[in-house]
Amino acid sequence: MRMQSVQSPIIPLVGELIRDHPGTISLGQGVVHFGPPREALEGIELFLRDPENHKYKPVQGIPALLEKIEAKLRSENGFDMRGRSVLVTAGGNMAFQNALLAIADAGDEIILPLPYYFNHEMAIVMAGCRPVLVETDASYQLQVDAIRRAITPRTRAIVTVSPNNPTGAVYSRADLSAVNRLCREQGIFHISDEAYEYFTYDGSVHFSPGATSEGAEHTLSLFSLSKAYGFASWRIGYMVVPDRLLPAVKKIQDTVLICPPVISQFAAVGALQAGRAWFQEKLASLAQVRQVAIQALQTLGPMCAVPRAEGAFYLLLKVDAPWESMDLVRRLVIDWGVAVLPGSTFGVKDACTLRVGYGALRPEIAAEGIARLVRGLEALLEKNQS
Amino acid sequence: MRMQSVQSPIIPLVGELIRDHPGTISLGQGVVHFGPPREALEGIELFLRDPENHKYKPVQGIPALLEKIEAKLRSENGFDMRGRSVLVTAGGNMAFQNALLAIADAGDEIILPLPYYFNHEMAIVMAGCRPVLVETDASYQLQVDAIRRAITPRTRAIVTVSPNNPTGAVYSRADLSAVNRLCREQGIFHISDEAYEYFTYDGSVHFSPGATSEGAEHTLSLFSLSKAYGFASWRIGYMVVPDRLLPAVKKIQDTVLICPPVISQFAAVGALQAGRAWFQEKLASLAQVRQVAIQALQTLGPMCAVPRAEGAFYLLLKVDAPWESMDLVRRLVIDWGVAVLPGSTFGVKDACTLRVGYGALRPEIAAEGIARLVRGLEALLEKNQS
Repeated sequence: MRMQSVQSPIIPLVGELIRDHPGTISLGQGVVHFGPPREALEGIELFLRDPENHKYKPVQGIPALLEKIEAKLRSENGFDMRGRSVLVTAGGNMAFQNALLAIADAGDEIILPLPYYFNHEMAIVMAGCRPVLVETDASYQLQVDAIRRAITPRTRAIVTVSPNNPTGAVYSRADLSAVNRLCREQGIFHISDEAYEYFTYDGSVHFSPGATSEGAEHTLSLFSLSKAYGFASWRIGYMVVPDRLLPAVKKIQDTVLICPPVISQFAAVGALQAGRAWFQEKLASLAQVRQVAIQALQTLGPMCAVPRAEGAFYLLLKVDAPWESMDLVRRLVIDWGVAVLPGSTFGVKDACTLRVGYGALRPEIAAEGIARLVRGLEALLEKNQS
Repeated sequence: MRMQSVQSPIIPLVGELIRDHPGTISLGQGVVHFGPPREALEGIELFLRDPENHKYKPVQGIPALLEKIEAKLRSENGFDMRGRSVLVTAGGNMAFQNALLAIADAGDEIILPLPYYFNHEMAIVMAGCRPVLVETDASYQLQVDAIRRAITPRTRAIVTVSPNNPTGAVYSRADLSAVNRLCREQGIFHISDEAYEYFTYDGSVHFSPGATSEGAEHTLSLFSLSKAYGFASWRIGYMVVPDRLLPAVKKIQDTVLICPPVISQFAAVGALQAGRAWFQEKLASLAQVRQVAIQALQTLGPMCAVPRAEGAFYLLLKVDAPWESMDLVRRLVIDWGVAVLPGSTFGVKDACTLRVGYGALRPEIAAEGIARLVRGLEALLEKNQS
């Protein structure tokens, strides 16, 4: 019963569609096209040097990785680590489940801005909680007043994802701080998913709401190595929580995972060694693809709006047509050889939206995919109008 | 609230005690002393050969590993795979959470024989379910009639762990089949944890209850590579479920993990290549340590019973004294330089029991640890009597 009320992800359906239509270019995947830095792979050697590394290691993460993460949080995110603890997880999704189980009981409500990251919605339902969906504005920015109005005595947390999947929106410091104040006022938590923190463009700046003194006491900040370090399959993420939540989070992790994969943790130490400097070059190439995508899509005019998206590697297009987004995705694959994800995956039911992911392909192929998408949308929209 | 009702594992307390008393020999750990076979480590090379391997892979597991597992289930466990599906997990604990969430709602009851594996009890409470504890007999064998009497309309599953952690008991084919019949009769599930399947001694044979036609429809069988392949830190386990449960189990895994660590899956393919033949040699050495331990402990006579334990690498001693098991553990560490786990960790409240783990140390050291344990218990028991 519990699982029947959890939505089935649409991604496998799109995957099948792609397999059935060879030659399709997929702008659907939520990964980057590059692999991890050399330093990460060197971590394997270090791991293999000590046979004790094949045994379980601490629930919270290996000390070498915890140290590297804390140093990064201090210097890059501006965290004061006093009163805060880090826990390494097997990916950002697991950090979200840990957060949820640590703070919410069955029957509690969790506020989720719409569009949402589908695995968040699924995790909330799985935990027996109720996702309370709150619309963002026309630019997919938070509407803090609407969030405030959605709070009830059962609300336990507000979730924000910035930079955002699926919209690419980067939330302002002002809005994230307003969410913090709201949480403090109401005695609830802010779950801040920052998996895409390094992916910002056009001078946009990422802000960590847990780093401020007003956020420290009630923010759970979630991070991932999957995106920036081309590290998706290694399954390493981490979370920062107020010390008082650490015992609960450790119990959860012990019960579900015992410890994060240790070979991946050694590689993660190497990845953080390479660090943000290594990533900047990758970002420059993604920024070019993004530019190409935005310019090409803007030629479609008002029939296909491209809301501002200064982060992650996503655009969530608003198509002005009365189609189900999954039907449009199907047409684009079958007739135009390009795949994107339907907005319905992300909870958008009242409009036809498409998520374009421009991170997973080498720039030339991504550009060709975008070109197909533009031609396809143009043809389908013209046909619809005539 | 949810997490406050989940017990805090006692293992970290014992860990601290050991750190505070250098030179302590630990018979507490639930791991083996050897690392994975050469073939497993060769999997790393294969993994690194294709950069696509850094991206997410299928939720269910990589095809090469699924094939190897299915072949093993057919040839070693006697599974007919028609109508059954395999899913790779990040360790056996995660397989247990997957199983639980797939079949049980908040408020449901799960029958757990006592003593239990503490992470099972914790997972049940975390899922909002109620663990219903049913005593085993004096030899830690199942009491199927008592299990039958514990079934109510809210019961969703019976959990068995054979070979057992913490008792080392191996359940008979007859008893496990009786549990199967009970499940079929009542329309509930059998969650069969077989992490220690290869660890049997003295001609004792492991039986997979999910392999029979009467078990196939309602058994979820959980396995792990952590123990037999010295693979604990790599986090690879797997589960076999009736096909109708696969969609739910995949949703859960997508939400919590996305996919098991892919480098570990490549290594797991290699480990299964080495296979049971590789493990037999390791088992022979463990069997010797076990023999030494049993003989030494039997010299303590009726004051310290050593119930029959033909599997895993544990003995659960029954000490005839009015002590809290954790107090006895503390004395043994401080005065005698040897650590074991208190039975209270495994739900035993009404007797003083100690779990001796003989798998984690090289034979010479394990033997020295056992000698200290025997001397310590002898002295403490004599003092208690006089």
